Amino acid sequence: MNAPIGVFDSGVGGLTVAKEIMRQLPNESLVYFGDTARVPYGSKSKKTVCKYSKQIVNFLMTQNVKAIVIACNTASALAREELEELVDIPVIDVVQPGAKMAADSTKNNKIGVLGTESTVKSGIYEEYLHKINPEITVVSKACPLFVPLVEEGLIEDRITEDIVGRYLHDMKEYEIDALVLGCTHYPLLRGVIGREMGEAVKLVNPAYETAKSLKEMLREKNLLAPASSKAKYHYYVSDGVDKFISFADSVLPCHVDETTVIDIEAY
Amino acid sequence: MNAPIGVFDSGVGGLTVAKEIMRQLPNESLVYFGDTARVPYGSKSKKTVCKYSKQIVNFLMTQNVKAIVIACNTASALAREELEELVDIPVIDVVQPGAKMAADSTKNNKIGVLGTESTVKSGIYEEYLHKINPEITVVSKACPLFVPLVEEGLIEDRITEDIVGRYLHDMKEYEIDALVLGCTHYPLLRGVIGREMGEAVKLVNPAYETAKSLKEMLREKNLLAPASSKAKYHYYVSDGVDKFISFADSVLPCHVDETTVIDIEAY
Repeated sequence: MNAPIGVFDSGVGGLTVAKEIMRQLPNESLVYFGDTARVPYGSKSKKTVCKYSKQIVNFLMTQNVKAIVIACNTASALAREELEELVDIPVIDVVQPGAKMAADSTKNNKIGVLGTESTVKSGIYEEYLHKINPEITVVSKACPLFVPLVEEGLIEDRITEDIVGRYLHDMKEYEIDALVLGCTHYPLLRGVIGREMGEAVKLVNPAYETAKSLKEMLREKNLLAPASSKAKYHYYVSDGVDKFISFADSVLPCHVDETTVIDIEAY
Repeated sequence: MNAPIGVFDSGVGGLTVAKEIMRQLPNESLVYFGDTARVPYGSKSKKTVCKYSKQIVNFLMTQNVKAIVIACNTASALAREELEELVDIPVIDVVQPGAKMAADSTKNNKIGVLGTESTVKSGIYEEYLHKINPEITVVSKACPLFVPLVEEGLIEDRITEDIVGRYLHDMKEYEIDALVLGCTHYPLLRGVIGREMGEAVKLVNPAYETAKSLKEMLREKNLLAPASSKAKYHYYVSDGVDKFISFADSVLPCHVDETTVIDIEAY
């Protein structure tokens, strides 16, 4: 099926998920929406995140998408059920594939989850992990400074090492052996996080797992684009095209030459 | 005149301005609006900040306010003119009073300005300072990590000292002798900033200067509440009452017992 896949995020972070989809599904066209006017979602209430996510999905439906990928951990945690009720096409989130991979990876049944305040408060990773295996112990930690650090470009920096050390202190005490990087920006800090946790801890990047799940789902439902189709990518934001394009160019393998601003509150 | 004053901010930071107004104008009633659903404004475009600010002012007008205080440096920098065109009551911003105080304080005509990305990019402090005195040299610096640090409670902390040191490096090179804390959260870091800059540098808190300007303006226009009136405070937000109340209680001298969530997009 030649229709595009709708991918959305609170801002630019979801481009890391879009990138994995482009890599694993090179024939699929994408319509990406980043809610750059109302970013971040990680400190907002369920009610507000649901409202914003529904507006975005209403917009994506006007683009005739065949499936929706919630490329934002917070929206996945807070709005997935509401979005599934809203539309009759498949909805994939980033939390379930990440949780499944973490459960498959752990040997001592001790898993860490890093995320935004709202994701951690929602308890969604615990819920999925305990559905898979009730024996798993989950240690989760909100890391509100990670996104601003990445956006300041402090990826490999003494300040970032200090902050990572502070946030991961408890994780180390609990001797977890798998750690979910449960916010789209966090995999960009995987170097520092990996050194802090040590090689014995498997870092789980939900973006990679999500693209894998999406591929399986499209195949099962017979929705894959034909191998002959050439992928087209369209980008929409609610604010600030220049900043979006500069971040996109640093993340994506292909240059973003056009991005359209839309009035998302109208959807 | 007994009508309330409307005070708004992108979130909770403007409460530091509300606090100064309560202190300097104890008879005045206030209606405070914090746009907690769409916070922060500091990384957003002029168009979006204007749109959001207009919606808020439309809401405040339904509360029959006699004057508006833009208690947010970014909204002051980007939306003041548009808001003045929108309403026929006085509009006070936080930038002009802060700039005036800095110009009054400097002896060597070298002034530093710290603010959000959008405030610094707008060049608004330079504009006002050069109107007062074209001889003044202005060094400005966006400090995007300050707000998340304050919201993480890292007020007096080694990490905060490191980050402050990094951001203020240029300011020290230029030997400024007055420094505007040009974002409502920044005065909460005044201890660390003051130690870093040294005693010779005067730190300017626009909140204090804004309340003083407001008082003068109300007196001139004969809009002051009578000395017999008892101030009433009403709080409105666009999201997350609990977080708002907990921050308000840490900033304001009086407990906030009621806060109402409104759908700001409808205004």
